[in-house]
Amino acid sequence: MVTVNEDLAKRSKFAYNDIEEDDAIASKIEKTGKEVIKLNRGDPPQYIKTPDYIIDAYVDALRSYKTGYVDMTGIKELREAVSDRYARSYKAKVSPENVIVTQGVSEALAFLNNVLINDRDQAILFAPYYPQYMPLLQMYGGSPIIEKYSEKLNWNLDIDSLGRSLKRMAKPQLRKVKYMMITNPNNPTGTVLKRDYLEDIVDLANEYGLFLVSDEIYDEIVYNGAKFTSVSEVANGVPHMILNGASKVYDSTGFRIGFMIIPGTDKFSSKVSAKLKDYATVRLSVNTPAQYAIAAAITNKKEHEKAIKNMVKEISDRVNYAYNLLKKNEYLDIVKPNGSFYIFPKIKLDLLKIKDDNDFVVKLLKDKNLQVTRGSGFGGDGHFRIVSLPTKSILKESVDRINDFCEENKKK
Amino acid sequence: MVTVNEDLAKRSKFAYNDIEEDDAIASKIEKTGKEVIKLNRGDPPQYIKTPDYIIDAYVDALRSYKTGYVDMTGIKELREAVSDRYARSYKAKVSPENVIVTQGVSEALAFLNNVLINDRDQAILFAPYYPQYMPLLQMYGGSPIIEKYSEKLNWNLDIDSLGRSLKRMAKPQLRKVKYMMITNPNNPTGTVLKRDYLEDIVDLANEYGLFLVSDEIYDEIVYNGAKFTSVSEVANGVPHMILNGASKVYDSTGFRIGFMIIPGTDKFSSKVSAKLKDYATVRLSVNTPAQYAIAAAITNKKEHEKAIKNMVKEISDRVNYAYNLLKKNEYLDIVKPNGSFYIFPKIKLDLLKIKDDNDFVVKLLKDKNLQVTRGSGFGGDGHFRIVSLPTKSILKESVDRINDFCEENKKK
Repeated sequence: MVTVNEDLAKRSKFAYNDIEEDDAIASKIEKTGKEVIKLNRGDPPQYIKTPDYIIDAYVDALRSYKTGYVDMTGIKELREAVSDRYARSYKAKVSPENVIVTQGVSEALAFLNNVLINDRDQAILFAPYYPQYMPLLQMYGGSPIIEKYSEKLNWNLDIDSLGRSLKRMAKPQLRKVKYMMITNPNNPTGTVLKRDYLEDIVDLANEYGLFLVSDEIYDEIVYNGAKFTSVSEVANGVPHMILNGASKVYDSTGFRIGFMIIPGTDKFSSKVSAKLKDYATVRLSVNTPAQYAIAAAITNKKEHEKAIKNMVKEISDRVNYAYNLLKKNEYLDIVKPNGSFYIFPKIKLDLLKIKDDNDFVVKLLKDKNLQVTRGSGFGGDGHFRIVSLPTKSILKESVDRINDFCEENKKK
Repeated sequence: MVTVNEDLAKRSKFAYNDIEEDDAIASKIEKTGKEVIKLNRGDPPQYIKTPDYIIDAYVDALRSYKTGYVDMTGIKELREAVSDRYARSYKAKVSPENVIVTQGVSEALAFLNNVLINDRDQAILFAPYYPQYMPLLQMYGGSPIIEKYSEKLNWNLDIDSLGRSLKRMAKPQLRKVKYMMITNPNNPTGTVLKRDYLEDIVDLANEYGLFLVSDEIYDEIVYNGAKFTSVSEVANGVPHMILNGASKVYDSTGFRIGFMIIPGTDKFSSKVSAKLKDYATVRLSVNTPAQYAIAAAITNKKEHEKAIKNMVKEISDRVNYAYNLLKKNEYLDIVKPNGSFYIFPKIKLDLLKIKDDNDFVVKLLKDKNLQVTRGSGFGGDGHFRIVSLPTKSILKESVDRINDFCEENKKK
């Protein structure tokens, strides 16, 4: 008898999700009978019911037995709906052939890295970034080059700094950079990137031959006067990819419907698009009735107008309410969000007996039974993220706990 | 301006699905106005409606707004249902903690290779195999060692041959073999593996320290007197993993609900199980209402009994009907299936003016507008696969076309 070789694959060490660690602490507290307020999951359906017109379309698909395999790149109806949506909203010409339906943006990220990243390749990410960009890049052998959104510029892109970094890079290193990825509107900062900055980053992508990827999953969740610009509006022939999906704007995270869009007609875009379809065929298709539901949701402009208007009003009310309460806290510094539903305060660590954001988040959870997310997991050390989706009374209670916590931990 | 580096990742060459090639030919024929009979997709809901009690449970979940994120390893109700199912059917002790819900078995295969396979690692597969085992192994850097099911033994395992192969392997090579995978009941041969053979392969796995993986997705689709044995019944402490899911037995391929089950309490099983959970967290959760639907489907034993009895009767009627017609064809040699819904005839190439199974399948499609699947894609050269799910009249018409085709292509 021989025992099994116990080595796991080397890439396995990159498979992790920061959320787990705090969830374990929260569970422990809950087992003692205490309630934990959780401001840590960006899950709109928990707080605002998925609109009934979408549920109805989903039920219709089930009642007409749309329960078998479908086109592995996504049903035609959904790819056409996504194509139409980008045409009417952003004047982007996207053929339905260049839309691939994925199991959430998570699968889209896996496909992206699968198709582009070899060992020792790199990708440019901007901090603070959505944490899941990292394991998927690293698992496929890549490593990140971290640029920064600038807190001083209200978390917009620091184009000058990016320009200097790219200029410094030697050509062989630049050839190893397989994509440059932005998130707009941003998670965790809640920032909608301004059009000027997007035009500038497109210019830099063009100048240095970088494939630009824009994660636009929150594209219709903008407020406080902000205007969202899709990279597809300003790309101007530069090869790029849009990641989007139904989870946030169509309030259906649990359906797991994402989209990869490769609008370009250049050779590289065609090559990537064709190969992504092969990746889709390897995993067969995406949940069938959910695809019909989202195709109907996107196509039903009238009902969607109503639903998204109501949703954005609710979200902006809640975000602004929490923001206005939090900004009175002298131990925090906050850029006002104008998109998505996150607030990303900076902790004035010099005024507190707190070591870093991990220390802040863990102690806040243990002392005040309030769960927020550590900024360092987003590459935003010294900050924490609040999901500002719950009701105002819960948000009020949460801010009270944060205020009490800061007072109790202030330096004398 | 610099152009984008056009190199795709090396692994991309392994992302393919044989089905695509023939689909393209079929589409071309259909565009001329002709109808193609398709016996190529193992998709039960196309032929036998998904049971209403499952649809009802799915609708209930939607109507109660179960539309947000859930536990990343699967909802507790579903993991418990799977655990109970293996306990009552196979007397296997599986903790719900050791069940991970995946987006179909396809994602389970991706997780398996992700967690175990490093560059130059290997896995033992048995031909004929389910084609998708191959790209997922190769994309993660592995290569297959192909053993064979024996056609002479009615496609059962050839244990003696496997024993000899393992004996020949040097120890360092054996340490590179990260798993050995069987499919029972089999796709494409329709064979239910006999218990003796399973006991023997468990002994070999134990002797050589091999992690045994058993894909049991067709476990309740058995007939013609066969009895299915799960590896979990005979594993006897040997580390193993079961792949299963709702697609076939619960007639819901389009829901994309799969399960990975790691029943062992040994150190390696615990290590794999823990790491697979991390992989699950990287892609967030699986479609939420579909999970509730399948949890209800598995739990509702009474309705399932009725549905599966009816389904297996229909399937066995259709398979036996097609088998009895086909066995009269003197240009084919067929092992009678007793599980799943496939027939895998051997083409007597010496009697035909046909080069190989590719030639057979492409010409049959072009000349007779009948689409079957080439055996070489399953590692079963000289064979083809029929999905025997359509009605008897379609199956009759299909066999007539095959007979005509063989007569027209016989050697003088």
